[in-house]
Amino acid sequence: MTASTPVAFEDPQYREAIVDLLGAIAYGEISAFERLAEDAKLAPTLEDKVAIASMATAEFAHVARLRERLTELGADPFAAMAPFQEPIDRFHEYTAPGDWFEGLIKAYVGDGLANDFYREIAAYLDADTRELVLASLEDSGHAAFAVDRVRSAIAADPRLGGRLALWGRRLMGEALTQAQRVIVDREPLSALLAGGVDRPGIDLAAIGRMFTRITERHTERMAELGLDS
Amino acid sequence: MTASTPVAFEDPQYREAIVDLLGAIAYGEISAFERLAEDAKLAPTLEDKVAIASMATAEFAHVARLRERLTELGADPFAAMAPFQEPIDRFHEYTAPGDWFEGLIKAYVGDGLANDFYREIAAYLDADTRELVLASLEDSGHAAFAVDRVRSAIAADPRLGGRLALWGRRLMGEALTQAQRVIVDREPLSALLAGGVDRPGIDLAAIGRMFTRITERHTERMAELGLDS
Repeated sequence: MTASTPVAFEDPQYREAIVDLLGAIAYGEISAFERLAEDAKLAPTLEDKVAIASMATAEFAHVARLRERLTELGADPFAAMAPFQEPIDRFHEYTAPGDWFEGLIKAYVGDGLANDFYREIAAYLDADTRELVLASLEDSGHAAFAVDRVRSAIAADPRLGGRLALWGRRLMGEALTQAQRVIVDREPLSALLAGGVDRPGIDLAAIGRMFTRITERHTERMAELGLDS
Repeated sequence: MTASTPVAFEDPQYREAIVDLLGAIAYGEISAFERLAEDAKLAPTLEDKVAIASMATAEFAHVARLRERLTELGADPFAAMAPFQEPIDRFHEYTAPGDWFEGLIKAYVGDGLANDFYREIAAYLDADTRELVLASLEDSGHAAFAVDRVRSAIAADPRLGGRLALWGRRLMGEALTQAQRVIVDREPLSALLAGGVDRPGIDLAAIGRMFTRITERHTERMAELGLDS
């Protein structure tokens, strides 16, 4: 533990919640790396393949710092990730893209949802953890790439829009389903979200409002792609 | 073109050879990334998966600088890579690992072969290009990881050694086959290797000696894994 976070981490429940949070983020990044690397195979050109592979490596680049921090907190990084393997793997299993555009949308929408969630939770964290979580958010222009590719594909074939809009809804539905599983299964993490840990927290109604905000931003992202949601 | 490499690049054949070389290295890294990311699926533990995914992202990290340099030289980076797609893809197609250990050995041996080749060719390059090529070599401790995992697996099951030794020979054979194809097909690159470009170069007998040295180092690497070659 670093000198700058003594008070919050004196509470073992808070420490446990942070270990959960960082474990979930780390496994999420590893998993995103794997799926994006897999989706890169669907790329129609070498240039597109390199673009999606860059997204994959950008996700993976955050894992090292999350592992270090987990070790500093006295946790085994891989044990911390383990509880999130099943829900995250299941999310990916149920949302395996059928083609290049579904893969692009998944990368864009999935990244967006994860980032929104991190930003929401960051407000309730100690300064060190907040900084670490926010560092996992940097967008290196990949969103613009996805928007550009999807919009021009729909312009060329408007029927594509209907199928991809359905796909976006499915992604959101699965993400919410798995997020709910995590909240039910992981008491320390959900206590943090619900303000049950003795920290400036949020109540259950606030969790509901948070999900509403995340859903609204998903709708905005779909609109940016030129898709209804 | 940068100010520090004017003389060498006044020779259009030299420039063409360097575009070939950087294109080959860049596509090799992209391709290594893809295959390592694929092999990560075979990892027996999450820790092993992260180790091989780190090797994948380390390869990919070099692509950006190679692309920039190709653009500086007035080349289209993706056009420069295109001639090497077929031989490199074919190498990977013929050497798809059947299990985790074959994947590990391929990563270790393939990386070693590529590094030996770059080191050999670096001596014949202008300073800027040499620096760029050598920067693609950094080993971040991944070799030690592969050696450790393979040696302990053979200690636990000595029969594995025979199969993996055959695998190592197959990797080397396919690498040489595809390298030979490239040398036949890509005149500018082979002229550089053979000293045909008006630069301090090497003759055909020297190319033979170079391949002998590369083969010897392959034998040393196999021995480090505890395998005959």
